[in-house]
Order: sequence, then structure tokens, then C-alpha cells
Amino acid sequence: MITLNPDAQMNGSFIRTLRHPKINEPILIAGFPGLGEIGNIVAKMLIDLLQAELFAELYSSAFQDFVFIDKNGICRPPRYEFYDVRRGRDLIILTGDGYPSFDDIPGHYEICNDILDFIEKFACKSIITIDGAVSSLSQEKIYVSATSKEIVSQYVEKGATLYRNKRIIGLSGLILGLAKKRGFEGACLLASTPGYRRDRKAAFRVYRFLSEFLGNTSYL
Amino acid sequence: MITLNPDAQMNGSFIRTLRHPKINEPILIAGFPGLGEIGNIVAKMLIDLLQAELFAELYSSAFQDFVFIDKNGICRPPRYEFYDVRRGRDLIILTGDGYPSFDDIPGHYEICNDILDFIEKFACKSIITIDGAVSSLSQEKIYVSATSKEIVSQYVEKGATLYRNKRIIGLSGLILGLAKKRGFEGACLLASTPGYRRDRKAAFRVYRFLSEFLGNTSYL
Amino acid sequence: MITLNPDAQMNGSFIRTLRHPKINEPILIAGFPGLGEIGNIVAKMLIDLLQAELFAELYSSAFQDFVFIDKNGICRPPRYEFYDVRRGRDLIILTGDGYPSFDDIPGHYEICNDILDFIEKFACKSIITIDGAVSSLSQEKIYVSATSKEIVSQYVEKGATLYRNKRIIGLSGLILGLAKKRGFEGACLLASTPGYRRDRKAAFRVYRFLSEFLGNTSYL
Amino acid sequence: MITLNPDAQMNGSFIRTLRHPKINEPILIAGFPGLGEIGNIVAKMLIDLLQAELFAELYSSAFQDFVFIDKNGICRPPRYEFYDVRRGRDLIILTGDGYPSFDDIPGHYEICNDILDFIEKFACKSIITIDGAVSSLSQEKIYVSATSKEIVSQYVEKGATLYRNKRIIGLSGLILGLAKKRGFEGACLLASTPGYRRDRKAAFRVYRFLSEFLGNTSYL
Repeated sequence: MITLNPDAQMNGSFIRTLRHPKINEPILIAGFPGLGEIGNIVAKMLIDLLQAELFAELYSSAFQDFVFIDKNGICRPPRYEFYDVRRGRDLIILTGDGYPSFDDIPGHYEICNDILDFIEKFACKSIITIDGAVSSLSQEKIYVSATSKEIVSQYVEKGATLYRNKRIIGLSGLILGLAKKRGFEGACLLASTPGYRRDRKAAFRVYRFLSEFLGNTSYL
Repeated sequence: MITLNPDAQMNGSFIRTLRHPKINEPILIAGFPGLGEIGNIVAKMLIDLLQAELFAELYSSAFQDFVFIDKNGICRPPRYEFYDVRRGRDLIILTGDGYPSFDDIPGHYEICNDILDFIEKFACKSIITIDGAVSSLSQEKIYVSATSKEIVSQYVEKGATLYRNKRIIGLSGLILGLAKKRGFEGACLLASTPGYRRDRKAAFRVYRFLSEFLGNTSYL
Repeated sequence: MITLNPDAQMNGSFIRTLRHPKINEPILIAGFPGLGEIGNIVAKMLIDLLQAELFAELYSSAFQDFVFIDKNGICRPPRYEFYDVRRGRDLIILTGDGYPSFDDIPGHYEICNDILDFIEKFACKSIITIDGAVSSLSQEKIYVSATSKEIVSQYVEKGATLYRNKRIIGLSGLILGLAKKRGFEGACLLASTPGYRRDRKAAFRVYRFLSEFLGNTSYL
Repeated sequence: MITLNPDAQMNGSFIRTLRHPKINEPILIAGFPGLGEIGNIVAKMLIDLLQAELFAELYSSAFQDFVFIDKNGICRPPRYEFYDVRRGRDLIILTGDGYPSFDDIPGHYEICNDILDFIEKFACKSIITIDGAVSSLSQEKIYVSATSKEIVSQYVEKGATLYRNKRIIGLSGLILGLAKKRGFEGACLLASTPGYRRDRKAAFRVYRFLSEFLGNTSYL
């Protein structure tokens, strides 16, 4: 007898919702694993300082083929975590340790679209991604690219430097491009960093910039 | 609670139609990214000189995992663009900056077939792809390969050199092969080029050849 | 005429069930191909010594593109085999020579989930995976990582060493992580091994540990 | 407006049937591209000498991303061709120039299963694949591996050497393994060859062996 298993429980991504937060039109702030770990560090700072709470996890068959073992010997697969903040303007903070294989381009697209599908349910219309951009040590800049001139201007007014005629590689850029196509607005903030190590200083620069930026648009 | 997202919004390609052009039995002229950027340059020249207008965009999860940032800091994912021309014989001009990963062979097939599916709706039955072929500096040839002897002959009569006992690697050749299987007719024009740089001169040679060729078959 | 074959007989994995064993809430013990072949050797020892019987085979389109030829010249594709043991606590022993390509991350996820789907039918709620962990020659340890603190403790009490702040690469770890997400409990036992050769000694160490461990929880 | 193209015309393989041959329970003889081109040469010799006729073509999105250009400048994508022979025992001869990418393991499985699906329609129950096996120059052997001891014996009696404790890499072996699982019987004949060049001599050895073998089982 042959048993077919056409409906394997995880083909692509799936999102485990732990709780249904009462947030409305939140801004998504996403810090993916990346250059100098700036995205992850900024997300962590926001989570800690704003006392954001975990409400959903995303797992994907495009993530790495290993599990993480924590300090207690407990295993878990790579994942992203969604945290919510309800203060003035609602936020969803997204971070985690999953990453699609370098060569798996469809995996990159799939993860971005799964995230966008999910945040759309909360009427989220705006996203900010955080990453690093390689540059010489002496520079301490925050670059910005966005989905429209208007949004670019808002960030440039606050001191960000226009990022132009470049590419943003990986999820931080791709999700922004796909979001734009789907009618979201958004920006990618890139801290200049030498890039060869965990750059807490650059991350703190973005954190400060972002706090001030959000503060001036009815947040904090 | 587990939320499955089986219908991610982009699995494979999708085409955003901006406008429904009134074209009938157009010829598709496709200039993909490739050797010496000849395909892209020729397409750009045709678009500019014939005042072709954008009417559709193709996005694909097989394209690269980055976004392009333009001179204004605005991001967008890689894509192809379809332009229409209504002069004598109608044309669709296809060009763009998307490209499947070198190793993603199914992605190559998928993109070619998605393009053919789309242009079939306009009763398109004929395609011309433009690319480069590496050769020594002193040569200034235009090579041709096609879906039938009759079509090869039409181009050879106009001065093109038969391209034979070779392979054409990438989208320019593959779309022609798949088009043939589906009942389209078509040709691939390859400008000889040293190949290591943007070759505007070779592109101009193809442009001139193509203008004359189309002119003599009721075009221009 | 065009004949489409959309329902190719093996897209993903399929499991050939040879027999329906009367087992209830069995523990799955999985020894995949891996470091020092420890997983495979331990599984083989359990099968031989407990007279376990083959009842199902798993084939996957993610396995290698070759067939094995046995000593009689008979060919077969790579596969996993499921054996059942009915003694005190029921067991399913899983082992074999299939392995997904290093780069095929979705293939890793698919195989793990197909295995979990299959063993769920027998009300299996607990899994133990066996593998090796590279370490210096002089060490003779058994490391453990598990799905919860309680389970880790059970193994540590019996002499296993906590494996922590690490990753477990490949199927042994991934299936445990995915199992946890789906509500299974389980552990991964890793024998320290120099890693460059078939390590029967390390395998025997795990076998002895495991026999004693299972014996004390109503087994053997 | 967004136009989705979920039903691209070629996802996986498809087979274009040119004619419906009246063959019954044919043996499939498959010569895929491979070591020393032995499979392809033997298939070509059988086609020529038995005046086999083309009746179907297989195209696959797993094949290479290029088109072949023949001596007349005509392009076509890589493909396999099915030829039929009606003499005593009916035959299907399969050969061609398509090959899945080295890394695309699911592509290998898909192509094998699509071929098996197709030949099953003709009540084909037996397959013979032809390939090369690297060995020193002085050896002139024909190795055999098969789906059962009985079949191995038939070939060994006729002078073939048992191929054992090995692997057969690629389509020649994999299709045999998958065929066995689906209830076909079959064998793989491997000519010893130095492997670094087109080996017509080794191919002729297999051709002679195969002709005699088939002749003695009611063929030729």
C-alpha cells in the first residue's frame, strides 16, 4: 500500500499566532539578520525599551536546516518573532534569526510576501526596515531609501542621507520593494558600518534617529 | 492558533497590466539583460525613438533578491517592462533588469512561458530577441538563428550571418525555443561583441539592421 | 497532441507501507546518516538486538540522484526504513541512506514533516534522534538537547551532558525542532566523536546509554 | 489590474506526442547523455539500424537554460525523443540531449517519473538503460545491475559482469530504481570506458551485446 502525504504541514511559511493584539494601522519595524547585526540590535532595543510583547512567530521551510540550542539545552528551529507595541501610534516589531539560503531567491520572495500578508490583517500600511551599509570607519551616517519621494523627504529632513543609484540586497530591501507594489509605503534605514563585526554603536545611532522620527509623527 | 498562508501573493511571476493597448498581432522585440547589454540598449533605443509606451510590468519570484534604488532614493524590485508601439505593424517591446539566478533553470522556463502566455493575449505570433555573441574585436557581424529555414533566410538576405552548430544560453535563446514549440515564429539576432563591456556600437548595429528589416516588411 | 503529466507519481516524499504494525504511542528513534555514522550504527544495533521488523519505506525526490547497487547487483534508490518493536514500550526505529542535497533546505523541512505526519498516525508523541558532535579524541561524552527542560533533566540525571548555546545541523536537529512546534516531545543524543571516520565505539556508548534510559522508563 | 498566470504552460515536463504507435508491452531502451556518450551512441545505432521512428518528444523545465542551434540556424530547446520499433518484440528507444542541472535532484526524479508515466501507457513493463563506467583502458567489460537476481542472471549468462556494491549516478540508475519501485523490471548495462572522451568502441560493444541478448529473447 502506498500512502501519499501531499499536505505536509509546512510547505513554505507558516505563522503561529499566540495572541490577537488590538492594534490598528501599526507601523511594521523589521530588523532582519544582516550587516553588523544592526537590524537585529535595533529591533531588540525597541522591544526592551518599549516593553513590546511577542504575539506571533513565523517559521519557514526556506530557513536554515538547523536548530538553535539555548543555554538550557532546549532546541528550536530558526524563526521570526512579531511583537506589538500600543503607545500613541501602534507598532509591530519583527525580528528573528531565520534566513533563507543565499541562492534561494523564490524563498526570499515567499517570506516577504508571507510577512506582508500577515501584517495586512492588522491594517498595517507602512513599514520601516533597518539594516547596515558598508562604508569607511570614519563615517557615521544613516542612509534612507523609500517607496516615494515624499517619504524620502521626511527622513532627509530629519538628517538621513539619501541612498541612491544602489541596490539593497536581501530581505530588508526586497520586502520594501514588494510592499510598494502592493500599495504599502515604507522606508529602509541603513546605518553606515565597517561591516565586519556586530556594530552596537551604529545600531544605537539608528535607534536614536528612529525614536526621534517616530516621536515627531505622533509616536513616543 | 496556526494561520496558514498557502496563497502568498507571488509564487512564480505576475504581470501588472497598467493599460490595455489596442494592438493586434504585434511582433515582440525582447532585449533581456545580457552580453554587452546589447539587448537592453537596443530595446531602449526602440522605446525612445518610436515613443513606445509602458503598458505592463512583470515581476517574478525567480528574480534577484534585491531592490534597485534610483537617483531619488526610491526603491523597486527587479522587473520587466512591456511597451507598445502602434505604427504600421504593431510592436511590443520587452526589456528590464530582472534576471533569474544562474542555477534556477525552472525559473528560466517559467519566466519565458509567462511572457509567452501574456503576449498570446494580443494575438502575437512572432518574436525577435536581441543579444550579443562573443567574438574578436575586428568582427562586426549580426548573427541570426530562427525557428525555421524560411525565417533564417529572410534575415540572411538582409545581411545577417547564419549562427549555427552552437547554443544560445539564457532567456534570449530559451524563449525562442519555447515559442517555437508553442507555434510562434521568431528569430534571435546576436551582435558580435568582445563582451567585456557595455557595447553601444554593437547595439546600434543591431538597431539599424532591425529598423531596416522591419521597414521592409511593412514597418516604419 | 500534447500530453501533460501533472500528477507525476513522486513529487516530494512518499511512504510505502508494507504492513500495519499494532503499535501504540511508540517512541520514534531516528538514526540518520551523519557524523561518524553514529545515528545509523545505533539504529542498526537496535534493529538487530530487538529484532525489529521493517514495516514501511520512505522515498523522496529530495534524496540523491543515484541508486545503490547491492552485492547481488540489485539496484534501489536511497530511502529510509521504518522498523517496529513491540516490547513494553513500543518503538519505531527509523534509519536509512537517503539524504537531501546540502543546499536543498525546503527538502530538509519536507522530509522532516513527512516523517512526523507518518508517525502521528501511530499516536507517536515522542522522538529521540541520534547523532555525533565533533570533539577532541579524549572526550567520551553523550550530549543532550531536548524540547523542554523536563526532558533535558531526565537525560542529564542519567549522565548525559547538557548541549547548549549551539546549533544542531541537519535532519537530527531539524526534526526535533519541527516536532516540538507540532506538540511532540523529544531529545537529540549526540556522541562526542573525532568525526573523520565511522565511529562504532561512540555509537556503542549511545546504544548502552539509550538502552538503560529506555529501560528505566518502562522499556526493556 | 493584476493578471495572474498560475497555469504556465510548462511547469515540470511535458510530452508532445507526434503519433500513436501500435506497440504492445515494448521494452524501453534508454540512452541518456552520460559517460563517454555511450548511452547516446548506442541509442543512435539502434535507431539507425532498426529504422526506428520518432513518435514523441519530452521537454522539461529542469533541462538546461539554452537552445541548440542546428547547422541551418534553427533553434530548439533540449529534449528527449521516443522512437518505436515493431519487430518481434516491440521496442521504445529513448535518447536526447536534455539533462537536469547537477544540483536539481527533484528535477531528476521528476523526469524519471514522467518517462515512466508515459511508457506505462504502452503497457511497457521492462526497461534497459545504457551508460558507461569508468575503468582502466585495458578492460573491455559490460557491467550489469538490475531490478532482481533473475534478471541479473540472464545478463551474466550472456557474458556481462556483475556490477555490485556501487552506485549508479544520474538518470540511468535513478530511473531503474524508481521503475523497480513501480513494478517494472529492468537492467542497466554499463560499458567500461576511460571516460574522458566519446567512446564509440565501448558503445559498439554494448550494441553487439544488446542485439544478441534481445535476439535470444524473441527479438531480432
